[in-house]
Amino acid sequence: MNLAFVGLGHMGLPMALNLLKGGIPVTGFDLSAGQMDALAAAGGRRAASAADAVAGADVVITMLPASKHVEALYLGEHGILAHAPKGTLLIDCSTIAPESARKVAQAASAKGFPMIDAPVSGGTGGAKAGTLTFIVGGEAAGLDRARPVLEKMGQNILHVGPAGAGQIAKVCNNMLTGILMIGTSEALRLGMAHGIGPKVLSDVIAKSTGRNWALESYNPCPGVLESAPATHGYAGGFGVDLMLKDLGLAVESAMGVGACVPLGALARNLYDIHSKAGNGGLDFASVFNLFASKNDANPAGSCP
Amino acid sequence: MNLAFVGLGHMGLPMALNLLKGGIPVTGFDLSAGQMDALAAAGGRRAASAADAVAGADVVITMLPASKHVEALYLGEHGILAHAPKGTLLIDCSTIAPESARKVAQAASAKGFPMIDAPVSGGTGGAKAGTLTFIVGGEAAGLDRARPVLEKMGQNILHVGPAGAGQIAKVCNNMLTGILMIGTSEALRLGMAHGIGPKVLSDVIAKSTGRNWALESYNPCPGVLESAPATHGYAGGFGVDLMLKDLGLAVESAMGVGACVPLGALARNLYDIHSKAGNGGLDFASVFNLFASKNDANPAGSCP
Amino acid sequence: MNLAFVGLGHMGLPMALNLLKGGIPVTGFDLSAGQMDALAAAGGRRAASAADAVAGADVVITMLPASKHVEALYLGEHGILAHAPKGTLLIDCSTIAPESARKVAQAASAKGFPMIDAPVSGGTGGAKAGTLTFIVGGEAAGLDRARPVLEKMGQNILHVGPAGAGQIAKVCNNMLTGILMIGTSEALRLGMAHGIGPKVLSDVIAKSTGRNWALESYNPCPGVLESAPATHGYAGGFGVDLMLKDLGLAVESAMGVGACVPLGALARNLYDIHSKAGNGGLDFASVFNLFASKNDANPAGSCP
Amino acid sequence: MNLAFVGLGHMGLPMALNLLKGGIPVTGFDLSAGQMDALAAAGGRRAASAADAVAGADVVITMLPASKHVEALYLGEHGILAHAPKGTLLIDCSTIAPESARKVAQAASAKGFPMIDAPVSGGTGGAKAGTLTFIVGGEAAGLDRARPVLEKMGQNILHVGPAGAGQIAKVCNNMLTGILMIGTSEALRLGMAHGIGPKVLSDVIAKSTGRNWALESYNPCPGVLESAPATHGYAGGFGVDLMLKDLGLAVESAMGVGACVPLGALARNLYDIHSKAGNGGLDFASVFNLFASKNDANPAGSCP
Repeated sequence: MNLAFVGLGHMGLPMALNLLKGGIPVTGFDLSAGQMDALAAAGGRRAASAADAVAGADVVITMLPASKHVEALYLGEHGILAHAPKGTLLIDCSTIAPESARKVAQAASAKGFPMIDAPVSGGTGGAKAGTLTFIVGGEAAGLDRARPVLEKMGQNILHVGPAGAGQIAKVCNNMLTGILMIGTSEALRLGMAHGIGPKVLSDVIAKSTGRNWALESYNPCPGVLESAPATHGYAGGFGVDLMLKDLGLAVESAMGVGACVPLGALARNLYDIHSKAGNGGLDFASVFNLFASKNDANPAGSCP
Repeated sequence: MNLAFVGLGHMGLPMALNLLKGGIPVTGFDLSAGQMDALAAAGGRRAASAADAVAGADVVITMLPASKHVEALYLGEHGILAHAPKGTLLIDCSTIAPESARKVAQAASAKGFPMIDAPVSGGTGGAKAGTLTFIVGGEAAGLDRARPVLEKMGQNILHVGPAGAGQIAKVCNNMLTGILMIGTSEALRLGMAHGIGPKVLSDVIAKSTGRNWALESYNPCPGVLESAPATHGYAGGFGVDLMLKDLGLAVESAMGVGACVPLGALARNLYDIHSKAGNGGLDFASVFNLFASKNDANPAGSCP
Repeated sequence: MNLAFVGLGHMGLPMALNLLKGGIPVTGFDLSAGQMDALAAAGGRRAASAADAVAGADVVITMLPASKHVEALYLGEHGILAHAPKGTLLIDCSTIAPESARKVAQAASAKGFPMIDAPVSGGTGGAKAGTLTFIVGGEAAGLDRARPVLEKMGQNILHVGPAGAGQIAKVCNNMLTGILMIGTSEALRLGMAHGIGPKVLSDVIAKSTGRNWALESYNPCPGVLESAPATHGYAGGFGVDLMLKDLGLAVESAMGVGACVPLGALARNLYDIHSKAGNGGLDFASVFNLFASKNDANPAGSCP
Repeated sequence: MNLAFVGLGHMGLPMALNLLKGGIPVTGFDLSAGQMDALAAAGGRRAASAADAVAGADVVITMLPASKHVEALYLGEHGILAHAPKGTLLIDCSTIAPESARKVAQAASAKGFPMIDAPVSGGTGGAKAGTLTFIVGGEAAGLDRARPVLEKMGQNILHVGPAGAGQIAKVCNNMLTGILMIGTSEALRLGMAHGIGPKVLSDVIAKSTGRNWALESYNPCPGVLESAPATHGYAGGFGVDLMLKDLGLAVESAMGVGACVPLGALARNLYDIHSKAGNGGLDFASVFNLFASKNDANPAGSCP
């Protein structure tokens, strides 16, 4: 198999490294020389351009920041649809607008390329550990071909529906995640303001009807979970500005199909306020501090 | 042991029946003759009044609608503190304002009664099945005495902190639950508006970062979970107006201690709009239909 | 002067009639034969198509529902830019996305047409009475030529800035209007729930810091203002679904430029809930009833 | 006439000075010696206590921070009802919970005192200029006696209804004011992000359906209005924490009577976030900066 990987950022590079580790030869391309060096150091091949990368590929994986990059890379003059060999399997792992995903998939299909949209859940931690969840839209036949490749990078492969369905489910999931994190932050802050420790409160809610991923696996209060970004200065993880982008996709997409998302829309604006205050680069769990008083003795630090 | 149970409503009656089933003699009191009949039919003893019920009791359990009823029952002239034997263990399982719980606990303590606040999570289903979670505030000694009794009615007994802490944790948990239900409804509606089935979407999110109790154990879309109230016309379960009451306690309590709860406050207003439209008696998962168009071919019915 | 008017709907027709009344010959086009008949009955000339209407025109006015119609009408093969005589002044009075307005204005400019965007404020009442406010974007020279025409249809002509600026200001104004209406409804409902009459309460707030257009000129409570749609069953006026469209433009536009609009976004979702409940065709002041209990003796009727 | 004035703070002192200027002898009391000095310097008489101040008074005016102070001052052992001469007219100008106002008024009435609640609108500027609006609840007879006194301090005297009605109307007005300020800020920020100047945008909206007090008389963008606190570093005026208190009264009061206030509740939480970030002492128009990016070249400064 010849696999081309375009987009070697915080997510793409560790994913590509897991493919190499799994014995799949990878030809990579990224605008950053440093990221290309890291791939080469692990045994990958450097391409001179995206067109060069995909030239002899059986499988192409792309991992890019936003809809406009994906559209340009696939549909542009020097792009994938113009340069990949006929029949190459195309896998887009970016998180983008469902409308964009459908547009690119239709263009691919018209030129005879099998294509799936396979956005991921699990963050940079999951990308490094090879424990990502792939949320897949597209034909079953394409997914069947992709499965051995995806299994090198993740643990769960979930087929949702036709082209674009992976993006839709991802957007729904991430909107809900953004809500869970703020709701959990409000609940913990409310208990703490009453003098209840965040650790015991988290334990109680985890056994009750308020249990959710943000509380149990990514607790926003420093010190409750050793592994959580909150305990490490909200560094790494999934940034506020990335959550803001995903909530923007959700709200835009909701307006497009006439769906009503009042909590989703408010959550977006709260992350926006948090980002505008200078926190866009912190992990999104730092929204916990939007509800802390500057005058608190210990506004964030070691909560428990 | 002589146990008095005051307040035999939708929650109190099945709890008292589980005590009887567990071999604990129960003397009950409720304003409804029908509920008293049901207790008597299962072997319980009828009391003529609350004062009569608690007269010879070692343990008193109360399960009432709101703060004002609890304050009146404990602090009033014909109330529990005036009529229970010295040293009787007092257990209030009502969900009320933390401030009220502390007030009653202080009055009890001043008169030498050990008392715990032990609001429950799990609904009428949990009350019947004896699988409730008790969220307890008060002294460890009181809880130790209460434990054998609580174990007849529930599976989890969680000690949060001093008097009132059970109510605080309950309020935090329920506020978060109210948010989870609306957030989950928005996410499912958004996917459905894009043509994704609610069952497959729920499965995907359940394996991703959006997972939470409302999605997995109480799915608001009819047909996704056989056991959920949504699948049975939103009957039974936990009513919209009860969720509205709990969110009111949360918002009031947040303002009292200077906590910030934007999603909690918005959730409260959305349940209020839903209740005002005539749905106060339905299960709170019916908020799912606040986001359905009257013009949809299938606004609620059998979603999947 | 030869003036072509394309789009003779609820707003366009009365505007065109005022031009005729002011002595300006109007050639009109609309897809509805009934609207064309009404124009002809008042002395206007019927055109067979938009292209036909603009063929010999000095000035073209367009009044269409949404961005896509405006783009198609101006940029399409059979459209205005392809068929209007060189130098014809183009005036778009539709309310559309600022991005669309700029796109069309650039295309017009590239072909040598002077063009202004001139969305209106004032509703069907203002259109009939000739008291509209025009909120104008584009070059001063274009506006100077347009002024004698606009003055037949409105009272205020406000120049905001370059091409697209009229749409931006309109979107800002209408977002705020949508917020004012809900905020005013909440305030009146709060007072009424306390037993204060809506008329005296409106009078008091009108003399205080809460004064605003919705309260004083378009009061949402039936009976407070004789002239308001609220007093006439919320018929006529500016529909819920039109407000929903404008708030959609505002939210979309805000996300595009990184602006934060939490009240605007919540207002949009509240009108959406109100529309989904079957009220999309009522005047937008009917959002007042979103806050009425179905169980109220007099949920809406004659408030004062 | 002997007039006692208790509570000589930012509002009370300038009000008392206007009474002196109008020829009414004032005996004042405040816990701050500095405020008492200022009154004495203008010809007022110092009292040793509140009881002393009201001892020989025909009319008592009170201006205090919150419900608890008013209840203590009127109902306490050393309070006004215990020490004022029979028949003295009592005027409370504080902004407090309607429930507190009714409680105090009932106690006053039971002891034979005529009493009105007369909260004010207009801020410290209005207090100094003698242009306040009084929003009055209570019997007409009481208001008739109060009128000559109130006219020395204000321009508008609005009778709303029975005891407590003044407070209710005030709470409704201020909730709406808090919403107007945020909504206006969002609209101006949205236009500015699109490159429209805040001055021209404010002018346009002021002539359209978005017009409101915050925009026209208290514009939140620095430089638009010379007289507004925004133009003077958001100093003076009506503080964020005072708005937060009033919105708290509104939300609490709404929950008490079953009113729905989604925008009011969200506005409260936004001011709370703004206050927690360290801005509680600034004028409430500074909420405009909650929507500014820290990375903007000119986040607040000289907008126009």
